[in-house]
Amino acid sequence: MSRSLRVAGAQMGPTQRDDSRAKTLARLIALLDEAAAKGAGLVVFPELAFTTFFPRWLLEANELASYFEPAMPNPAVQPLFDRARELNIGFYVGYAEKTPDGHHFNSSILVGPDGEIVSKYRKIHLPGSVEPRAGEKYQQLEKRYFEYGDLGFPAVRAPDAWAGAITGMLICNDRRWPEAWRVLGLQGAELVCIGYNSAAYDPNGGDREDAALRTFHAKLAVQSNAYMNATWAVAVAKAGDEDGAGLIGGSCIVDPNGVIVAEAATLADEIIIADCDFDLCRQGKTKMFNFEAHRRPQWYGPITGQVGVVEPGRETAG
Amino acid sequence: MSRSLRVAGAQMGPTQRDDSRAKTLARLIALLDEAAAKGAGLVVFPELAFTTFFPRWLLEANELASYFEPAMPNPAVQPLFDRARELNIGFYVGYAEKTPDGHHFNSSILVGPDGEIVSKYRKIHLPGSVEPRAGEKYQQLEKRYFEYGDLGFPAVRAPDAWAGAITGMLICNDRRWPEAWRVLGLQGAELVCIGYNSAAYDPNGGDREDAALRTFHAKLAVQSNAYMNATWAVAVAKAGDEDGAGLIGGSCIVDPNGVIVAEAATLADEIIIADCDFDLCRQGKTKMFNFEAHRRPQWYGPITGQVGVVEPGRETAG
Repeated sequence: MSRSLRVAGAQMGPTQRDDSRAKTLARLIALLDEAAAKGAGLVVFPELAFTTFFPRWLLEANELASYFEPAMPNPAVQPLFDRARELNIGFYVGYAEKTPDGHHFNSSILVGPDGEIVSKYRKIHLPGSVEPRAGEKYQQLEKRYFEYGDLGFPAVRAPDAWAGAITGMLICNDRRWPEAWRVLGLQGAELVCIGYNSAAYDPNGGDREDAALRTFHAKLAVQSNAYMNATWAVAVAKAGDEDGAGLIGGSCIVDPNGVIVAEAATLADEIIIADCDFDLCRQGKTKMFNFEAHRRPQWYGPITGQVGVVEPGRETAG
Repeated sequence: MSRSLRVAGAQMGPTQRDDSRAKTLARLIALLDEAAAKGAGLVVFPELAFTTFFPRWLLEANELASYFEPAMPNPAVQPLFDRARELNIGFYVGYAEKTPDGHHFNSSILVGPDGEIVSKYRKIHLPGSVEPRAGEKYQQLEKRYFEYGDLGFPAVRAPDAWAGAITGMLICNDRRWPEAWRVLGLQGAELVCIGYNSAAYDPNGGDREDAALRTFHAKLAVQSNAYMNATWAVAVAKAGDEDGAGLIGGSCIVDPNGVIVAEAATLADEIIIADCDFDLCRQGKTKMFNFEAHRRPQWYGPITGQVGVVEPGRETAG
């Protein structure tokens, strides 16, 4: 019996600061409808999918609060949940989470085709800074607005409707950190869902990395880590010119060989789709990346034992 | 002052089982001469560069012993060391090491332009099996012939002649394991030297991975791990049809963006060359991959705490 699931990535074009919540939610629902019409059982939306990427500004408290979800679901997003259950399709979506006791996280949830939340993840690799950079128009204040994720990297065995695939979630910058993937790989992950908002260039003009290089980096990270953990991966962007700051697209679905099997062609709302056969993970998991047979953790100590770099001394070792 | 070093990769075509040691050493010296003539200060040779890839056979003791180096250097390889010192060029070379007390490793050394051994590494990620696979013409017996490396993943600050670059070594299969790269990255590695012998296809006809896919995998692993650790990498193959078993080529030099800047065009003896500016590592090491600012080791525990996969249960997490 084939263990296959048709998965869609729902890339979104930009969401401007003055776009209404209702307008943006209608776009998500239109993408959901299109994915369902194409036979998908799971659709992956971007990071912070309901709003603009607000950490690019130092915001006053009222506006900042407006970007957070006080519960999930909540009245503002309920129509997405309702429509998905009606269509019998599940989804991954990223959002700004405010907990009942006042904590803030950059989070994602995996919602089953029955509308129940299957798993939650809170972003661990927060980029940016706590303090705004003086004199710069655009900021990256994720470390100010969010706490570090406190749920680890949980993988779950998905519902039977999703072929029981062992599924994990990452958010944006997490995908560049092999540690995050490996913790999922060590749980036997067969599908990793990722939403992202990645700058296409430095909007303050501070460095020379262009959109082509940044898109290359984004794909390279997903392709290699999918390969090295023998898992499918679905990486989905919010793309295009958002409030004057460019975001890369490059949404893609990657097989356990690290090969891109579906890829967005635009910087706009766009569905990409692929049939993910989870049995294709077996070759990598049992041969090249048979962890039990080949990993040597006794030599990996610095990965958990230190945070930053410790350079060797001037003396060369013998 | 620019911190730059011209590095060569010395890809080698196949070395057959009945090729004499002297013939093979002459090829290494010819490649060394060509690299020096092109201005390189360091040349990287393949894994097990002095012989055929002998773990592909179950061998009787005398032949097996003939592939190991009882010391480094030793009379059989001394001319390479002598010529390198004469040319004021250093090298990385992989070899089968037999220690004075009878241990066996798949090793590499980094030799300075003064002929002194700067660093030694013993391969940690040994592929293959201890027991031969019954009825198969070709084996992969690295786990039988070698002990697991016992030196960790040491990086050293190279001699001033090499711009003081923090340099690490990996061997073949190690390059597919992000843990190995990260331990080097956590030492601030700016240059990672890798020799390899990678099958172009299953010589027993057992699976369908072809040379193109395997070459893609080899490059993907090097490019992504160079990027994610903001280091230069030089990955060098023994290539072509060796005793009836195909080896991929694809030798390449990769910059800290993960971009290939030099690449072999053949499956034969071939020098590739690039000027490695180690200051190009700084962007990655201080921004995107500023480990001190962004790593969260408290969530990486399974990487050192377990060897193999532990799958989640049938119950889905809330």
